[in-house]
Amino acid sequence: MNKDIPEISLQRLPVYLNYLRSLTDEDGKYISSGAIASALKLGEVLVRKDLAYTSSAGRPKVGYVRTELIAALEEYLGCNDIKNAILVGAGGLGSALLAYGGFGKYGIQVVEAYDSDPEKVGSVVGGKHVLSVSDIPNGIKQHNAKLAVVAVPAQAAQAVCDMLFNCGIKGILNFAPVFITSPENVVVRNIDVAANLAILASMI
Amino acid sequence: MNKDIPEISLQRLPVYLNYLRSLTDEDGKYISSGAIASALKLGEVLVRKDLAYTSSAGRPKVGYVRTELIAALEEYLGCNDIKNAILVGAGGLGSALLAYGGFGKYGIQVVEAYDSDPEKVGSVVGGKHVLSVSDIPNGIKQHNAKLAVVAVPAQAAQAVCDMLFNCGIKGILNFAPVFITSPENVVVRNIDVAANLAILASMI
Repeated sequence: MNKDIPEISLQRLPVYLNYLRSLTDEDGKYISSGAIASALKLGEVLVRKDLAYTSSAGRPKVGYVRTELIAALEEYLGCNDIKNAILVGAGGLGSALLAYGGFGKYGIQVVEAYDSDPEKVGSVVGGKHVLSVSDIPNGIKQHNAKLAVVAVPAQAAQAVCDMLFNCGIKGILNFAPVFITSPENVVVRNIDVAANLAILASMI
Repeated sequence: MNKDIPEISLQRLPVYLNYLRSLTDEDGKYISSGAIASALKLGEVLVRKDLAYTSSAGRPKVGYVRTELIAALEEYLGCNDIKNAILVGAGGLGSALLAYGGFGKYGIQVVEAYDSDPEKVGSVVGGKHVLSVSDIPNGIKQHNAKLAVVAVPAQAAQAVCDMLFNCGIKGILNFAPVFITSPENVVVRNIDVAANLAILASMI
């Protein structure tokens, strides 16, 4: 756990990483904090502070070696450590998430998918056999999964999360647009798509 | 535009709203900032500051009237103003987003969906006829849409966003896990699912 970094800074690290990965050798070997700040519409001091949480150090008047900064961000974000996650809810959104191949670049493997609908159990979604929710405790144990993605309907989300907490899940990425009550020692991150669109509408 | 509120506070307002909506009459007429803070694992002073951006005022030793606070948050987030949005990319994720009914509670209507795949154009996804991307300029004009949801593959995202900016879109919710270059006067919010899972992994 990266205890030393504020969540708000941690949230920006993948943004820096995506930006740096979008550059090519033609953009040069070095990149300055000012250039990063300008591209991302952030303050330069803030960028420098955020990046200081990683092990990378910019060089005065030159900036960061781009490839080194990418490596430092990847190291900090644990991209090189394989972590197993499970997914609960193989409906439209869950299926789309399973089919999405982007988790690997952060070292995350979605190892199993579960659904409560008997018609979905046994089907193959995104290359995964969908298992019954009753298999969750075994699956978590077998794969030593600490992470779960929850893409179930809002009214089912709290019960599903409670079950996951009881089975030892420490972090949940919850897509259901409801407030989830959680124990002290776990983290729930909510991706509320409608709320994000509402926030966006408030910003334009 | 809510110019006076920091983005980090704005981001928490839907979280408060979801929490308050999860309570019932049995939880009482009033709710204190301390109770909200405790449920959401936030600091009480921060909660009070955030809520002060809305028009609601807590009463000393009593707290907020829950229904009034909900109404104030809904008002601030523009839930009662109808805003039109379009969606580009009717693949797995785009289809799931179209089928998702949660936008309405924030006053947002996803009025049209577009895709570049001729096989998808003309099909019905989430109750919407999928149109060709060449129809985007007309659609934006006709519906006076200022918001767009982009759920296209990473390699297509920048070109799609550029087109949307040119057509007058002011805010984009981008699901493609790439950095999007954008003009000064627009806002791009990224929902990078894998990055969120990586952040979660760093927090547990």
